[in-house]
Amino acid sequence: SLDAQLLLAQIRALGEIGSDAPGEGRTRIALTDADRAGRDLLVRWMRELELDVRIDRIGNIFGILRAATTEGDARPLMIGSHIDTVRNAGALDGCYGVLSGLAVARAWRAAGVAPPRAIVVAAFTNEEGVRFQPDMMGSLVHAGGLALREALDAVGTDGTRLGDELARIGYAGELEPGAIRPHEYLELHIEQGPILEAEGQSIGVVENLQGISWQKLTVHGTANHAGTTPMRLRHDAGYAAAAVVAFLREQVAACSGGTTLATVGSLRLEPDVVNVIARKAIFTVDLRDPDEPRLQAAERRLAEFLVELARREGVEIQAERLARFEPVVFDAGLAAEIESSARHLGLTSRRMTSGAGHDAQMIARIAPAAMIFVPSRSGISHNPREHTDDAQLVQGARVLLEVVLRRLQQ
Amino acid sequence: SLDAQLLLAQIRALGEIGSDAPGEGRTRIALTDADRAGRDLLVRWMRELELDVRIDRIGNIFGILRAATTEGDARPLMIGSHIDTVRNAGALDGCYGVLSGLAVARAWRAAGVAPPRAIVVAAFTNEEGVRFQPDMMGSLVHAGGLALREALDAVGTDGTRLGDELARIGYAGELEPGAIRPHEYLELHIEQGPILEAEGQSIGVVENLQGISWQKLTVHGTANHAGTTPMRLRHDAGYAAAAVVAFLREQVAACSGGTTLATVGSLRLEPDVVNVIARKAIFTVDLRDPDEPRLQAAERRLAEFLVELARREGVEIQAERLARFEPVVFDAGLAAEIESSARHLGLTSRRMTSGAGHDAQMIARIAPAAMIFVPSRSGISHNPREHTDDAQLVQGARVLLEVVLRRLQQ
Ligand SMILES: NC(=O)NCCC(=O)O
Ligand SMILES: NC(=O)NCCC(=O)O
Repeated sequence: SLDAQLLLAQIRALGEIGSDAPGEGRTRIALTDADRAGRDLLVRWMRELELDVRIDRIGNIFGILRAATTEGDARPLMIGSHIDTVRNAGALDGCYGVLSGLAVARAWRAAGVAPPRAIVVAAFTNEEGVRFQPDMMGSLVHAGGLALREALDAVGTDGTRLGDELARIGYAGELEPGAIRPHEYLELHIEQGPILEAEGQSIGVVENLQGISWQKLTVHGTANHAGTTPMRLRHDAGYAAAAVVAFLREQVAACSGGTTLATVGSLRLEPDVVNVIARKAIFTVDLRDPDEPRLQAAERRLAEFLVELARREGVEIQAERLARFEPVVFDAGLAAEIESSARHLGLTSRRMTSGAGHDAQMIARIAPAAMIFVPSRSGISHNPREHTDDAQLVQGARVLLEVVLRRLQQ
Repeated sequence: SLDAQLLLAQIRALGEIGSDAPGEGRTRIALTDADRAGRDLLVRWMRELELDVRIDRIGNIFGILRAATTEGDARPLMIGSHIDTVRNAGALDGCYGVLSGLAVARAWRAAGVAPPRAIVVAAFTNEEGVRFQPDMMGSLVHAGGLALREALDAVGTDGTRLGDELARIGYAGELEPGAIRPHEYLELHIEQGPILEAEGQSIGVVENLQGISWQKLTVHGTANHAGTTPMRLRHDAGYAAAAVVAFLREQVAACSGGTTLATVGSLRLEPDVVNVIARKAIFTVDLRDPDEPRLQAAERRLAEFLVELARREGVEIQAERLARFEPVVFDAGLAAEIESSARHLGLTSRRMTSGAGHDAQMIARIAPAAMIFVPSRSGISHNPREHTDDAQLVQGARVLLEVVLRRLQQ
């Protein structure tokens, strides 16, 4: 059975690593020193459970609980997520899923028997995509969706090379990515959105995951004096960027019937001076929709607007793709198993779509996959105020354990 | 007579200091090491002309050419401007005026006679206001419009204290600000706008200068996940900032009949991550109008919009005043002298308004003041491509010398 106290204590302990200020969130961006410290702690915990720890060449960490038989070892059930965070993050996003996987392995150890099939607890590299894009990178490489070489050569927002940073923190392993092929994949995660809480449901049975389109846009305008340049003679990169932000919200998201989400989370001006019209604006666009044609329509509308805007403002606009993932439908059998496991434990549940991207989305390319969600208070995530009640966290982990028990009999 | 070649050589030499990259502009922001190097060079040139060099407690530099009589010393004619620059600037903005003042003093030295009234060449501290606000700070303190203590305590965009930076570069002088009270003040400057070039005029006779209103706005929103947060539940500080940028351009500047200018030159988001809705946006607003009631109307419309926007988006918006200067009308007698001097030298001229703020605007509070403009190619300034033909620069300096010769007889 599940050691709920130890699970909660480990979530708290890992949440201290990379702490911004007491009670103030943490920043454990992939392949930084803080990420290394988090990895070291996770690996120590895996070793304490006598899991067989393997690191692959993109830095994914696997803790393997061997099966009783070689047949069982050949059909591993993988439980995964990530331990990297965004800047000034909550403690749960990712860590909760990895540490719940450990709790499942621990339950087996406590019972003193080897499982009928191997259990692999996975922590994938750079799920958040803050410094290196695309996000979900470790699981994408694992699933064969991105060449290892290309991933290692990714250049960060700070100009570093991913492969160098990986070697620097000592997590450039030897295992070939994809070598540990899951027979099934499960991921437990906080919802990060407001739906479960609003409806008073305990468990989310994630059926599908929306598509994600990330771009980096660069507007090249003309620096000039704020006091002497008539408005109609300006080529203001900052105004053009603001016009894109407004267009995305007012014309793309607002006109999609509520399904398309559009976010500009990062924006910088050059030279960034009060009395100088910006010569350059560099910003990101995050578009999402559960429906691929609608996501493409949003991308197309943006592209058309950029052409019109560039002409109107006399600026040049470059678009670079940072990430693009199509919507994914999870395995129906696994989803049904999650639903019936929740019911069996007396927990309410509802079917739902994931708004966030997850490693499960990548692994779904190579194995049946599904996800379990627990509620997020006020739907807040990517924020130090991210919160799920302990009781709800434990419920989610119990559902995971129940699903694993059922699947390992198969 | 004027040594044109030496003036042009000094402009080039000073323009090398703080150079960003060969042929790529310079960054000599007030009270940085680059500013110190520029000041050292200027002081050396003043000493070579055997001017009496005095530094005041806000770091303003004065090079005094004594008159033949004590009566003449008591009624100094001041020729001033500044040698600090914006980031990635041209070589002319400010330096041209100071070095032309030196050229006037040099003409006197060459003639071997003491002038009937003292000539003071002034280089005022922090005219650009890039790091420390307000702009025109040295001349404002000189004119008694800002207490020395307050100016020294100004906190920079990089968190430094102005007084500490001034002491660090060795330019915290002993002279009381305002001790050298000009009897008249002249400033020669590039137009920084497109009007003289467009009309084919050689000399701008600056009659007045528009009002300037600088604010720093901070939007406090809520960080949340870009993929899970429905558009209608967002409190997106980045979107709110973009809405202000669009409003200023589309509703304030566009509806003013073309007189109000509005610029957002600096804008930063926090945490500035692709998949995180911004919790904070910090940006500047630069509003200008030659008419004080119209400038106030623009400020009022912005303030009203901020209230409405804060309510609509569920964000908090703080406004902090960085600088506020009313429009200034220059001395009519001096303007007429400039106009007739240009005519006397066979140069075309036109009366005009200055779009940029200048030290003359501050000194006008304590003495008759006026300005002379020369054309700026394509109206470009605050940009490494800022340019005025050598012949035009020399024409401007000759007009300055002519005006000085005439005034010193008074
Ligand atoms: N779960 C999560 O926050 N993933 C990060 C990738 C994204 O959805 O932006
Ligand atoms: N002349 C000039 O560029 N002054 C800087 C102050 C301003 O007008 O913004």
